[in-house]
Amino acid sequence: MSVIVDFSIFPMGKEGPSLSPYVARALNVIKKSGLSYQLGPMGTSIEGEWADVMAVVDACYHELEQDCDRVYMNIKVDSKKGREHGLLSKVESVIKKAGK
Amino acid sequence: MSVIVDFSIFPMGKEGPSLSPYVARALNVIKKSGLSYQLGPMGTSIEGEWADVMAVVDACYHELEQDCDRVYMNIKVDSKKGREHGLLSKVESVIKKAGK
Amino acid sequence: MSVIVDFSIFPMGKEGPSLSPYVARALNVIKKSGLSYQLGPMGTSIEGEWADVMAVVDACYHELEQDCDRVYMNIKVDSKKGREHGLLSKVESVIKKAGK
Amino acid sequence: MSVIVDFSIFPMGKEGPSLSPYVARALNVIKKSGLSYQLGPMGTSIEGEWADVMAVVDACYHELEQDCDRVYMNIKVDSKKGREHGLLSKVESVIKKAGK
Repeated sequence: MSVIVDFSIFPMGKEGPSLSPYVARALNVIKKSGLSYQLGPMGTSIEGEWADVMAVVDACYHELEQDCDRVYMNIKVDSKKGREHGLLSKVESVIKKAGK
Repeated sequence: MSVIVDFSIFPMGKEGPSLSPYVARALNVIKKSGLSYQLGPMGTSIEGEWADVMAVVDACYHELEQDCDRVYMNIKVDSKKGREHGLLSKVESVIKKAGK
Repeated sequence: MSVIVDFSIFPMGKEGPSLSPYVARALNVIKKSGLSYQLGPMGTSIEGEWADVMAVVDACYHELEQDCDRVYMNIKVDSKKGREHGLLSKVESVIKKAGK
Repeated sequence: MSVIVDFSIFPMGKEGPSLSPYVARALNVIKKSGLSYQLGPMGTSIEGEWADVMAVVDACYHELEQDCDRVYMNIKVDSKKGREHGLLSKVESVIKKAGK
């Protein structure tokens, strides 16, 4: 079973336009997990077993709720039996079929 | 801390247009949890402590992955310190401010 | 074709914990449209033809970007041929199948 | 104003585990638009003016609803005044702050 979780996390109600310091802290949590991940402009995808990816989501939440009174998250899950290396294979499969 | 999680869960790759039998199984899992919830046309919102609501999300996932080769989930989280009865208060607050 | 769009819209980078004044302005735009809608704790669902529901999403965006430097939206779309009164029928169908 | 829209689109109720042929058709629509985009494992991000990115979302919807009885979409919008090249700058900003 390959589970890919794509998620965004950020504080709400903090003045100022930049959220990147908070996203960077979540990214550091993801890196420490050792799971495969891909950082994107609107979210980060991580891949692994269900329990492992959700443990990372949990750790990211706890990282931010320490000093954020309000935290927003958006999570998409695509869990598919028998898939491997889905972070790469999903993109490659689409590119091949899209043609030039 | 009141955490509201709104989530949708359904199988992908199953023939037939109706997903409601799967959503109903997830709803039964939610009911058993004893947490406050609100069923909507596009997702179900549940409210509680972070660990408790995520345990329900986890249980719903395991309910469906038993017989679904591919499962899709969409989860929105709004976690706010000091809020109570957010399922009701968020809607009431908007209605009041919207006026007639 | 019944298209149901569930969406959340709020400013980012505004100090203060309450987003309800902004959500209320979006709700007023939705009401003016005359489309069926259902306000929930984590988003509002509206139903209609694709072009009509997306025109409402567009109007809500323009309502907020007037005075918000940064706007975040989350939109889920479920478009199904032949469905009618989906806002009600989707919920009823799940409740029936969930049993007591 | 830089608007980044990250979206996923796929049919529901089609038998078979692979959605990539449908995603590839949407990708071809995106390419034709000439807008900056980034294909990811869980969605594609496109950047431009609000009306332009939403026109692409509209065209992708119409591409799939031709032969799909049910279409699901998930759309995240981050619209920020004064930002340029957000697809790159958002990721770079996070990487810098995350450190090694």
